[in-house]
Amino acid sequence: MSTQPSPFPTAEQRKADHTAKRDAVLRAAVQMFNEKGFHQTSLDDVAARLGVSKPTIYHYLGNKDQVLLECVKIGLQQLLDAAATSSEAPGTGAERLIAFLTRYAEINMDDFGRCVTLTSEEALCPASRQEFRALKRQIDTALRGMIEAAIADGSIAPLDPRMLGFALAGALNWPARWYDPAGRETAGDLARQLVTTLSLGFLPRH
Amino acid sequence: MSTQPSPFPTAEQRKADHTAKRDAVLRAAVQMFNEKGFHQTSLDDVAARLGVSKPTIYHYLGNKDQVLLECVKIGLQQLLDAAATSSEAPGTGAERLIAFLTRYAEINMDDFGRCVTLTSEEALCPASRQEFRALKRQIDTALRGMIEAAIADGSIAPLDPRMLGFALAGALNWPARWYDPAGRETAGDLARQLVTTLSLGFLPRH
Repeated sequence: MSTQPSPFPTAEQRKADHTAKRDAVLRAAVQMFNEKGFHQTSLDDVAARLGVSKPTIYHYLGNKDQVLLECVKIGLQQLLDAAATSSEAPGTGAERLIAFLTRYAEINMDDFGRCVTLTSEEALCPASRQEFRALKRQIDTALRGMIEAAIADGSIAPLDPRMLGFALAGALNWPARWYDPAGRETAGDLARQLVTTLSLGFLPRH
Repeated sequence: MSTQPSPFPTAEQRKADHTAKRDAVLRAAVQMFNEKGFHQTSLDDVAARLGVSKPTIYHYLGNKDQVLLECVKIGLQQLLDAAATSSEAPGTGAERLIAFLTRYAEINMDDFGRCVTLTSEEALCPASRQEFRALKRQIDTALRGMIEAAIADGSIAPLDPRMLGFALAGALNWPARWYDPAGRETAGDLARQLVTTLSLGFLPRH
């Protein structure tokens, strides 16, 4: 006698299904926040795009503040992972810094990274704002550390690390405002061009 | 017989009084938008800070969207004035570009320039958004023109002007998010350091 497949999902299947649905909500939300602005997007809009009800979103993620916090946490985690990977790569300090900056710029042109840059702290409730700030501080610290290591091994110029960090972060965050994924250039190409421009400076090198 | 001063203001005095009051409303509004965020600031908050009523603000400037548009227009005009002044200065193309970029960064650390950078287009109503975009485009065009002139006279490296414009604008807009006027460094010092970092690049020059 052949066994019929059970119509009841296993615990594993239920978990995978829950994760897939939660991810779909996050992806729809982050894209709408980026396109229309956080304040101009309601969870009703997000629910409508997914063809679900607002309580479904509450079930998977919570209120609008919690949805935004999850979105920026994904982007910040991508940046932290990039920092960890780059700082362990072989080569000089400058090579590791350039690898990190290129990945940083690319993430900033992607959905969750864009959301990190486009989100102003005031949009979050005080508790979420603290968590957001703490994660951003970790990335600033990682960037500062890579700059200091590259100055120490002589592979970059002995600049003020704080000032250089601000200049680099600003230049590489800005694509969140202007990058058009439908445009001619890929995020990777733009990232490499921006980082090259920053590494060489605009005054001629003789 | 000595003439008594008239208790009735002249047309000129009335005009000066109107301008002073309008300016005070704009200054209070821009500072609160920058501190708390546009969406978190109501015209009631601005009125309370000035010790006036909300209808007084409506009288001088209109609704919240109109107040924000006036604030960003002041900042954008400062940037356009800086572009006009710098592009007529003597020296090489690189010198004119560096003068403009330094002023650009300084304006971005001041109340109205900060507001330009912190304002996302979606916050404005469609008509105001168009005006905001058109003015920002004028500044991008002015920056692009100065970059092209400096490449043409050989005083800066032959980079892609669009990419360089994005890198510079991003790095010099970013202080709107982190600059603390109560900090140790003046806006002028920070502006000069940032522009030097961008002009020389972070790789060593031998």
